[in-house]
Amino acid sequence: MDRSPGSTPYRPLLSSASRPLTVTIPAVNESGETVPTPIAGEHPLTLYVDKREIVTLMTLGAAPEALAIGWLRNQRLVGSLEEIVSVQVDWDVEAVAVVTREGLRDADERLATRTVTTGCGQGTVFGSLMEEVDSVRLPADRRLSEATLYALMEAVRHHESIYKQAGAVHGCALASERGEILMFVEDVGRHNAVDAIAGQMWLDDLAGHDKIFYTTGRLTSEMVIKTAQMGIPFLVSRSGLTQMGWEIARRIGLTMIGRAQGRHYLLFTGEERFTR
Amino acid sequence: MDRSPGSTPYRPLLSSASRPLTVTIPAVNESGETVPTPIAGEHPLTLYVDKREIVTLMTLGAAPEALAIGWLRNQRLVGSLEEIVSVQVDWDVEAVAVVTREGLRDADERLATRTVTTGCGQGTVFGSLMEEVDSVRLPADRRLSEATLYALMEAVRHHESIYKQAGAVHGCALASERGEILMFVEDVGRHNAVDAIAGQMWLDDLAGHDKIFYTTGRLTSEMVIKTAQMGIPFLVSRSGLTQMGWEIARRIGLTMIGRAQGRHYLLFTGEERFTR
Repeated sequence: MDRSPGSTPYRPLLSSASRPLTVTIPAVNESGETVPTPIAGEHPLTLYVDKREIVTLMTLGAAPEALAIGWLRNQRLVGSLEEIVSVQVDWDVEAVAVVTREGLRDADERLATRTVTTGCGQGTVFGSLMEEVDSVRLPADRRLSEATLYALMEAVRHHESIYKQAGAVHGCALASERGEILMFVEDVGRHNAVDAIAGQMWLDDLAGHDKIFYTTGRLTSEMVIKTAQMGIPFLVSRSGLTQMGWEIARRIGLTMIGRAQGRHYLLFTGEERFTR
Repeated sequence: MDRSPGSTPYRPLLSSASRPLTVTIPAVNESGETVPTPIAGEHPLTLYVDKREIVTLMTLGAAPEALAIGWLRNQRLVGSLEEIVSVQVDWDVEAVAVVTREGLRDADERLATRTVTTGCGQGTVFGSLMEEVDSVRLPADRRLSEATLYALMEAVRHHESIYKQAGAVHGCALASERGEILMFVEDVGRHNAVDAIAGQMWLDDLAGHDKIFYTTGRLTSEMVIKTAQMGIPFLVSRSGLTQMGWEIARRIGLTMIGRAQGRHYLLFTGEERFTR
């Protein structure tokens, strides 16, 4: 689809069907008192594309339309937002129906193999994502300063969150190179949060090359792959790193920082983009 | 297979192929110093059953044979250990080959649908596990006292762990009703840890009805379902709870305790088995 600069980004027809994010249940504490306790919502959402059942995601339900789009994007089943005609969520039947212009790319081949990854939540990479990651080119000329890193960590700390109320969710943020939070998504599945951000980036017509990706979750292979696929050169986490996350980040030249809390952090890979 | 009481439990032919659990990489901290940093291993392991490729799990690799067996058990693809002839892990080709006596149960049907759950790690339930959970009957007459709960939490706190060294893993423990740890498994995927315990319980011929299951991870639907499937009436976590985890635990009458840290906990469901 051709678009002149500054024109309104293309939007599929979207429902707007988020769920209540917490419910409050009675729990009994160590003093024998019954305490009202907020817990995170968790709902099955079955994704149908052109009436074909693809997968059931367990989700908090905060941003189901962006999640469906981002899931298809990160699985490389659609190549651009323009391929999607509509995304309609109906919680009564726990389903999201996606209609595409010309069907999914290589659907049979991609859906035939499964990799269950270490991701919290949407821990499944279909097809050959691992091989594709080698084709990713991240920009060499972007820079992240320590001051910006601290500004981002401070912004995350002050962000209102389901986690503070109910725990049991992971959060992801997309931030500008100045450390401002542009989007913040939480989900019971960490990878749902990543995918919802990938979907919303398409909806808002945002590129990745000048952004920072933040996650509360661990830096596993799948998290690194998805960040790279979104074209984002910086990945920051409060948590630690796995061996394969490290190996892939090195191979593709991602700047990856973990254990970022307070005034502490560890720079794992991509030192050349980081300035002190 | 008939067995007289006290006879040696049946064992398939097993390899014994665990991987190094951590590697040490150089990272740069906030003072600009390069610090050797242990990180958790993460390896793909592709499961073949009777030469058919089933799934690729991303794993720490601590207990790959028990993981393969427990994965098949928890997916209800095998009904007993006796159905398995051999489990051979070969890290050179990142594969585990399982040979069964008579093939997998309902394999085509079960492998046709996918639910990607909120689990960390092995977040995929194939087939109709959700429906099957209603057939689970947990024993009503078992009891867990607060003193035993505290003993278990203390035992977990003192257990040597990869987590203390490297982070980025989840741990699960199987404990006796006296709060003693019988098994402790960590993995980069929380559900791998659960599955490895399920596999080892079969290998050691241990029943679930008189056990406590402990996890560092969140109490999501999948964690509750797997605990119930192992026949274990008690589920304890350091973390919080999701809505569907709560709903399923109530429906099947599981005794579930979360946010267990120090001298604090919240009893969420199954109060009738808990004594103060």
